[in-house]
Amino acid sequence: MIREITAHELDPESFIREKVEDIRRTVGEGWAINALSGGVDSSTVTMLGHRALGERLRTVFVENGLMRAGEAEQVTGFFRALGVTVEVVDARAEFFAALKGITDPEAKREAVTQTFYRDVFGRLVRESGANHLLQGTILTDVDETVAGIKRQHNVFEQLGIDPQAAFGYRILEPLIQLRKDGVRKLGQALGLPGELFQRIPFPGPALAARVIGEATPERIETVRQATRVVEETLSGYGTFQYLAILHEDRVTGMRDGRRDFGQQIEVRCWDSVDARTATPTSVPFEILEQLAQEILGAVPGIVSVTYNIASKPPSTIEAL
Amino acid sequence: MIREITAHELDPESFIREKVEDIRRTVGEGWAINALSGGVDSSTVTMLGHRALGERLRTVFVENGLMRAGEAEQVTGFFRALGVTVEVVDARAEFFAALKGITDPEAKREAVTQTFYRDVFGRLVRESGANHLLQGTILTDVDETVAGIKRQHNVFEQLGIDPQAAFGYRILEPLIQLRKDGVRKLGQALGLPGELFQRIPFPGPALAARVIGEATPERIETVRQATRVVEETLSGYGTFQYLAILHEDRVTGMRDGRRDFGQQIEVRCWDSVDARTATPTSVPFEILEQLAQEILGAVPGIVSVTYNIASKPPSTIEAL
Repeated sequence: MIREITAHELDPESFIREKVEDIRRTVGEGWAINALSGGVDSSTVTMLGHRALGERLRTVFVENGLMRAGEAEQVTGFFRALGVTVEVVDARAEFFAALKGITDPEAKREAVTQTFYRDVFGRLVRESGANHLLQGTILTDVDETVAGIKRQHNVFEQLGIDPQAAFGYRILEPLIQLRKDGVRKLGQALGLPGELFQRIPFPGPALAARVIGEATPERIETVRQATRVVEETLSGYGTFQYLAILHEDRVTGMRDGRRDFGQQIEVRCWDSVDARTATPTSVPFEILEQLAQEILGAVPGIVSVTYNIASKPPSTIEAL
Repeated sequence: MIREITAHELDPESFIREKVEDIRRTVGEGWAINALSGGVDSSTVTMLGHRALGERLRTVFVENGLMRAGEAEQVTGFFRALGVTVEVVDARAEFFAALKGITDPEAKREAVTQTFYRDVFGRLVRESGANHLLQGTILTDVDETVAGIKRQHNVFEQLGIDPQAAFGYRILEPLIQLRKDGVRKLGQALGLPGELFQRIPFPGPALAARVIGEATPERIETVRQATRVVEETLSGYGTFQYLAILHEDRVTGMRDGRRDFGQQIEVRCWDSVDARTATPTSVPFEILEQLAQEILGAVPGIVSVTYNIASKPPSTIEAL
C-alpha cells in the first residue's frame, strides 16, 4: 500500500531533499537512465534525478516521428536553459515501420507502446550501462493500472521481466506517492518553466492518435501541420484542450476549378474541468472560419474542415 | 439549336396553351408516362402533362429507399391536392441490391442512375403501353450535357437506343427552352404550391450521396434520421442549403460509461447565391450544440457530430 501525499500536505523542499538522498543512496556509484517525454511527470522526475545524480543520469528524448512541430527542440530547449542535457534519439524509422499497415486504433496504440518499451528504450537501457531506471509513475497511474484503465507504466512489467533478477536493474519511482497537482507543485519548486505546465494534454501515442486510419509519415505530417495552425489559433481562449484530427474518409473538393477528392480535418476545442465531462468551446464563428481558411491554405491535400459540436459524453475528447 | 425563352419574356398562360396543344396533338389518342421526383422540373412537367392529357398521362414516383423521411407522402400529397394521382412504385429492394458493396461515390451514383433508367423506369415504360414519354429536361441540362458536366437526361440516349425506331416511342420535352427561373414561374402559374419551390436542393442519388462508404438500408436510415433533425432545426435560417452526412470513419464514444466506437454525423449549412461559391452559415453556437444533442439522442449509433467551417472552394456543397 502506497501512502498518498496530497498536494496540500506536500512540502516541496523537504520532499526534494528526501528523494535526492534516496536516489543517491540507491544508485550509489552507478548510473541511471530515464526517458523524457516533455510531460509534467517525466519533466519533474528528470529535474529530481539531475538534482541527485548530475551527469550520472542520462536523459533521453525519443523522437518517434509522431510529435508536434518543433516539440523535440522545445522540450530540449527548456532543459538546456536549466542546465540539463537531453539526448535526442531519432527512432522515427522504427516507429513508422511498426505502424505500417495498421489502422485499428488499439493496435496503433500498442505498436507505439511496444516500439518504445521493447525496441527503442529497451535497447537504450541495455546499452547504456546504467543499472537504475528512473520513472515518473504517479499514484493515479497505479490506481488506473489496478482498475484496468491504463496499461502498466513499468517498462519491465510490460515485458514480463523481473528487472532485478534478469539484469540487476532497479527501478526508481520517486513520484509514486503524488498525484498530478502535487507533481505540478514539485515541478515548479524544481524550477520547471511555466510554459511546460501550460502545454495542453497530449495523448501517449502522440499524433498517431490524431489520424483515423494508417499513421504514415505523410499523414502524420498532414495532421502535424493542421495541429500547428489549430494550436496557434486556439491557444488564446483558455480552453481545456484543442486538437486537429485527420479523417480517413475522402470528400469532394475543388482543385484548379475541377472536382477532386481530398481529405478532411476535424477541429475539436473543449471546455472542461476534469476531462470527465466536456463541452465544445463556443469559439466566435469568424475565428472558426479563419481557422478553416488557414488550414485549407497551409496543409496540402485538405479540402474540408469541420468543428466538433458534440459534448462528452457520448463523445470523448480525443477521436481515437 | 434550341431557342431560349428567358423567364422575363415568358408569358406563362400563352406558353401553357401552346404546350398543351403540342402535347395533345403529338400524343393523339395514345398514352404518355412520366417520372415525378418532386423537383421543380418534374413537378412542372407533370402539371403541364396532366393539363394536356388528364388520365392519359401516367405519373409514377419511384420509391428508391433513398428519399428523406416522409418524402413520397409529401410529394404525392401535393399532387393529390391538385387532383393529380401519382402512382408510387416501391423499388427499394432493387436499388439496395444495386448499391450492395459499392463504396466509390461515382460508382454509387452510376448504380442509382442505371437502376432507375435501365431497370425500374425502363421496365415501367415498356410495360405501361404508353407510346410517349414526358420529360422535364430544361435548357441548362442540355448545356451541361454538351459541356460534359452532366450525364444525358434522355432515358433512351442513356440506353443507346433510338426510341422511335426501337419501340415507336416519342419523347416530349416541353420545358426545353426554359431555365430554372422560367420553370419556377411556369410551375407557379400551373398552381404548384409554394412549399414545393421552397424545398432545398437535393442530389440525384438522394441519401446515397449523403453517406460516405456503402449505402446499406441501415446506414441510409441513420442519415435519414439525422437529415430530419437537421432540416427541422435549420429550415428557419433562410440559408441556401443544409444537410447531414454520415461518415464512414469510426470515432471513440462513451456508451453506458464505457469507451466504444461509434459513427459521426457531419452537418453542413451554406450561405450561397448560385452554388458556385458558398460559405458556412454562422448559426448561433447554442443552436449548433442543441442540434448535436438532438442528433446524439435521436439517431442510434451516433457518438459524434461536427459542423462544416470550410468555404467553397476548395470545399463543395455536398461531400460526395
